[in-house]
Amino acid sequence: MVDPTRIWTAALIVIGDEILSGRTQDRNVSQIAVWLSVQGIRLREVRVVPDDQNAIIEAVNTLRARNDYLFTTGGIGPTHDDITVDAIAAALGVDVEIHEGARAILSDYYKARGGLTEARLRMARVPAGADLIENYMSGAPGIRHGNILIMAGVPSITAGMLDSLTGQLEGGLPLQSTTIGCWVAESEIADLLAATERAYAGCQIGSYPFFREGRTGANFVIRSTDANALNACTADLSAALERGGWAVTAGGI
Amino acid sequence: MVDPTRIWTAALIVIGDEILSGRTQDRNVSQIAVWLSVQGIRLREVRVVPDDQNAIIEAVNTLRARNDYLFTTGGIGPTHDDITVDAIAAALGVDVEIHEGARAILSDYYKARGGLTEARLRMARVPAGADLIENYMSGAPGIRHGNILIMAGVPSITAGMLDSLTGQLEGGLPLQSTTIGCWVAESEIADLLAATERAYAGCQIGSYPFFREGRTGANFVIRSTDANALNACTADLSAALERGGWAVTAGGI
Repeated sequence: MVDPTRIWTAALIVIGDEILSGRTQDRNVSQIAVWLSVQGIRLREVRVVPDDQNAIIEAVNTLRARNDYLFTTGGIGPTHDDITVDAIAAALGVDVEIHEGARAILSDYYKARGGLTEARLRMARVPAGADLIENYMSGAPGIRHGNILIMAGVPSITAGMLDSLTGQLEGGLPLQSTTIGCWVAESEIADLLAATERAYAGCQIGSYPFFREGRTGANFVIRSTDANALNACTADLSAALERGGWAVTAGGI
Repeated sequence: MVDPTRIWTAALIVIGDEILSGRTQDRNVSQIAVWLSVQGIRLREVRVVPDDQNAIIEAVNTLRARNDYLFTTGGIGPTHDDITVDAIAAALGVDVEIHEGARAILSDYYKARGGLTEARLRMARVPAGADLIENYMSGAPGIRHGNILIMAGVPSITAGMLDSLTGQLEGGLPLQSTTIGCWVAESEIADLLAATERAYAGCQIGSYPFFREGRTGANFVIRSTDANALNACTADLSAALERGGWAVTAGGI
């Protein structure tokens, strides 16, 4: 039986100079967030850090202590700028070792691709005591060590790793959400939103304004782990908006 | 005269449950990163935090102390979930006050839009002692308080605020970069990359693998504040790759 009051949380560390330089648009935050919510786990905080051992260690040790799970993306390839495994091992105070299962996977994967070179064998290195996370897409596996889940930086590879983790992590009740939209300036209905949120314990209402086609509108996202409260809150907010003269679009605009 | 050894840094706090839920794909990290690099400032770290006062305070006080600049995005609208100003004032230990310049801007902006209501006046609230950042796109201005720059969450509005800040922040030499690409598995040339980087002080080489059209390739981004070193390092790496039998595409694949 799931304890409805227990909130499971995760943090994510995105490791990579390419995100901080603006060269690469991150795609992992949103895909991991969405995947986590289906597992009944909330993404509570994200940090983007450079390829710098001290920066990674600080983030790992702060975030793993105060969340149920800590995910990392990036920095597990074969090149000199891939320092995630070493930094996490240092954060944990454990050695780096070759994982024999990973060596076997890589040896098999590279059999028809020029063989398992020294550089490629780097991708079998793990913090001592780790397990592997299956990688459907390419050779190098992800790594699990306690509550830390070490994923690839390439989003399509991370997607496969998340798929192989589906159902494997303990979570709580999934956070459900509904969205409604109106062509209204959010400043016109700020009091209404606040009052509606106060009236429904356990529901949060987020207000997301936009400007399109020269007009001002907003989508309202209602979130709760309690489907009954969610539906009642959504219905109440929709009715109040309609009474105010704003047509409501279910699902958002 | 710019001191070539002084590195100016910035941090960014992205504030918003909508990013952590995966509902909204962040666009501000990359646009702020790219804008900063033109100003000669490096984005050193990013945190994404929920709409939670304690989470914001912790991030603000840690990051403003160890960076030249701290940017925030999100949470400066008129609704109940917009708590950025209050949280930053609490972090700084100052009161929240109505900025008379902001009141005048909003009063003017809303003259033909139903007037300056109580909810809209919330957008004139600033941490005491703040200046404004011009907003070309909509009414509510951004806010500057010491080394903290408080920007909108909507990317197009943030873009306008960055434009009005262009040339206003002191920075150092801009970090320049070149990109070259090859159809090569990065694991095949890991040693070459590491050796080339070691040979050019002040240059960093990032390796970004990809999978396209069923083939494996990688782009290599060389970064330096020294244009001569950058060009020499790029030429050397390109020549070494060509000698190894891999055709190099300038600008990346």
